[in-house]
Amino acid sequence: LVAVIGGGSAAPSVLEQARALGRELARARLSLVTGGLGGVMRAASRGVCEGRAELGGDSLVLGLIPGTEAAQANPFVDVVVPTGLGIGRNLLVVRSGEAVVAVGGGSGTLSELAFAWQLGKPIAALSQSGGVAARLAGTALDERRRDLIEGVSTPAEAVAWVCQRMGYSPLPGE
Amino acid sequence: LVAVIGGGSAAPSVLEQARALGRELARARLSLVTGGLGGVMRAASRGVCEGRAELGGDSLVLGLIPGTEAAQANPFVDVVVPTGLGIGRNLLVVRSGEAVVAVGGGSGTLSELAFAWQLGKPIAALSQSGGVAARLAGTALDERRRDLIEGVSTPAEAVAWVCQRMGYSPLPGE
Amino acid sequence: LVAVIGGGSAAPSVLEQARALGRELARARLSLVTGGLGGVMRAASRGVCEGRAELGGDSLVLGLIPGTEAAQANPFVDVVVPTGLGIGRNLLVVRSGEAVVAVGGGSGTLSELAFAWQLGKPIAALSQSGGVAARLAGTALDERRRDLIEGVSTPAEAVAWVCQRMGYSPLPGE
Amino acid sequence: LVAVIGGGSAAPSVLEQARALGRELARARLSLVTGGLGGVMRAASRGVCEGRAELGGDSLVLGLIPGTEAAQANPFVDVVVPTGLGIGRNLLVVRSGEAVVAVGGGSGTLSELAFAWQLGKPIAALSQSGGVAARLAGTALDERRRDLIEGVSTPAEAVAWVCQRMGYSPLPGE
Repeated sequence: LVAVIGGGSAAPSVLEQARALGRELARARLSLVTGGLGGVMRAASRGVCEGRAELGGDSLVLGLIPGTEAAQANPFVDVVVPTGLGIGRNLLVVRSGEAVVAVGGGSGTLSELAFAWQLGKPIAALSQSGGVAARLAGTALDERRRDLIEGVSTPAEAVAWVCQRMGYSPLPGE
Repeated sequence: LVAVIGGGSAAPSVLEQARALGRELARARLSLVTGGLGGVMRAASRGVCEGRAELGGDSLVLGLIPGTEAAQANPFVDVVVPTGLGIGRNLLVVRSGEAVVAVGGGSGTLSELAFAWQLGKPIAALSQSGGVAARLAGTALDERRRDLIEGVSTPAEAVAWVCQRMGYSPLPGE
Repeated sequence: LVAVIGGGSAAPSVLEQARALGRELARARLSLVTGGLGGVMRAASRGVCEGRAELGGDSLVLGLIPGTEAAQANPFVDVVVPTGLGIGRNLLVVRSGEAVVAVGGGSGTLSELAFAWQLGKPIAALSQSGGVAARLAGTALDERRRDLIEGVSTPAEAVAWVCQRMGYSPLPGE
Repeated sequence: LVAVIGGGSAAPSVLEQARALGRELARARLSLVTGGLGGVMRAASRGVCEGRAELGGDSLVLGLIPGTEAAQANPFVDVVVPTGLGIGRNLLVVRSGEAVVAVGGGSGTLSELAFAWQLGKPIAALSQSGGVAARLAGTALDERRRDLIEGVSTPAEAVAWVCQRMGYSPLPGE
C-alpha cells in the first residue's frame, strides 16, 4: 500500500498529476490508500482504476474517510473504512501506507506529512504540484531523521523512488 | 463488506465455525472485515482465503488492527490498516461492515455488538458458538431498535440472512 | 477521577440516582468524568456542582464529548474535551476513570461496561437504576476477570465501594 | 483552556519560555491543555502550577497523553486523559484549546499547528523559541484563512494576544 496525500480540491494540472500517479501505481502493481474524498484523493484513485483496467493487475484502492457513511467515499474506492475520526483519520492514512507521496495540498496535507515524518515513512513530494508538496520537497521537517522529503518531478519518478525505498520490484515487463 | 467479530482466542469448535463462515462469505462473493488478529478473526480470514482459492471470486479480507505495525495482522489479511487505536478499533470494525456476524467472544466482542447495535447494523449471532454470541442471540440490547440480534444456527444460515438483510443476491450458481 | 456512565436520556428516578451519586462524589472529594452530554451524564455532573457548592472541596467535572464543539457539553462540565471521536469517546471516558459506576443505560452504556471490563477497571452498577446497570450488576462479562460488576443499592454505597477499591480515604469529617 | 504545543524535549532556554508562558496563563486565570508529557508540555504545566501557587486562582492543567496509563503524565498535570490514541491525541489537544500557543517544536508540533489551522483556532508562535514555532511565526499555512500565525516575542505578549482573540478580560488587578 502506498499513501497518496493532497488537497480535497485542486487545480486541474494538479489533479492530472495525481491521476497519472494512480496509473503508475497500478502499472507497478501497487495498491493505494487515501483519505477517500475528492480532489487529489479522487484523481489518484481514478488513476489506479484506469491503470488496472488497461494494464491488468489487482491493485486496490482503500479509502479511509473522515465521516461515518461509506457513501461519502469517491466512486473509485474499492474498500471504504468510515473511520468517524474526522481529520484525525489523516494519521491512519499515512500509517496504512508503506510509503507516502504528496501532491499539492494545504494544511490537511501538512498534518499528514508531519505524521508521516514522525512515523519514519519514506516520503516523496511532487515538486511541480504546488502547495505543501512543492514547498517541502527536498527538506527535512526536523532533526529526528537524516533523510529528506524526496523531491520528485514526475509521477513515474515518484513510483520508481517508492519502489526502490520499499525494496519492491515490479514484475518484469511492467 | 461483512464484519465478523469474536474472541482473539477460542475453542477449536468455535474456530471451525468461524472458518466455515469465511468460506461461506467467499462463496457468496462477499468481503470480510475483522480486527485482524488471532482466534475467530484469523479463522474467518483463513476461511475466506480458502473459499476464494477453491471457488474463485475476488472476496477481500480487511484487517483493522489495534496496533501500529502491519506485521501484527494475521497472514490471511489482504489489506491491513494499523489503526493505533487499541481496542478503540472495535468501533471501526463494525462501522466498516454493512452487516455484523458474531461468533463466540467475550467482553471485546460485547463492545462490538453494543456499537453495532447503536449504529443500526444488521447483526447475526451464531447461537451454537458459545460466549457472547450465544448469550445474546435472539435478544435486543435496548429499546432503540425493534429488531433483534438474529440467532442463526450455522455459518451458511448466517450468510444467507446477511445477504437478505443487505438486499444482496449472490451471483447465480454460487 | 471516577467515571459515571449511563443513558443520554433516562427516567426521573434514574436521573435522581445519578444526581445523588454526583453529590456523594463531591462529598468524598472525588472528581467526575462523563461523556459530557445529557441524561445521566448531566445529572451526575449537576450533583457534583451542587455537592461542592454545599460542602466545599475542589471536585472537578470533566466531559469528554463525542462532537467537536465544546458548547455541546452540558452546563455542569468544568473541563470539556471535544474529542470528535463520536461514540468512540466511550473508551476514553472509562479509561480516564480509576473506577466506573453505571447508572441505568442502554447499548452505549453497555459498550462502556465492556471496555471498562477489558481495561480491568473496578466497576459498580446501581442495581435499582434499571437498564444495563441493573441487568449486569453482580455478573461477570467473561472469564478474564475473577471479580464481578459490583451491584450496589445506593449512590452512597457506590462511592464507598469505589473509595475502598481505589484505596482512597476521603478526608476525615467528610 | 489554552493549548500549549511544543517539543517533548527542548533546550533549556526554550523550556524557560514555556515555563514563563505557564505562569502568565495562571496570572490571567486561564487553564492549560497540553499533550501531558515532557519538555515544553512539562515546563508549561509547571509554570501554571507555580503561577497559581504564587498568585492564587484556579487555573487547571489538563494533559491528554498518548498512552493508556495516567502515570505517564508529567507531575504537574491536574487532570489526565489517557487517550490511547498515540500521536493522534495531537488533534484532541488543539481541539480542546480555544487558542493555541506554539513554543519551539518539531514535526509533532507541526502536526498540531496544521490541525489548529484547519480548525480555525487562533494561533500564536513564540518567534524566539526556535523550531517550528519560529519558522512559521507570521506565516499562513494555506489560503483557507486570511489571518496568520501570530508571531509573538514574549510569553506575556502571547497571553495578551490570546486573551484579546478570545475576547477574554482577566479579572481586574491581575
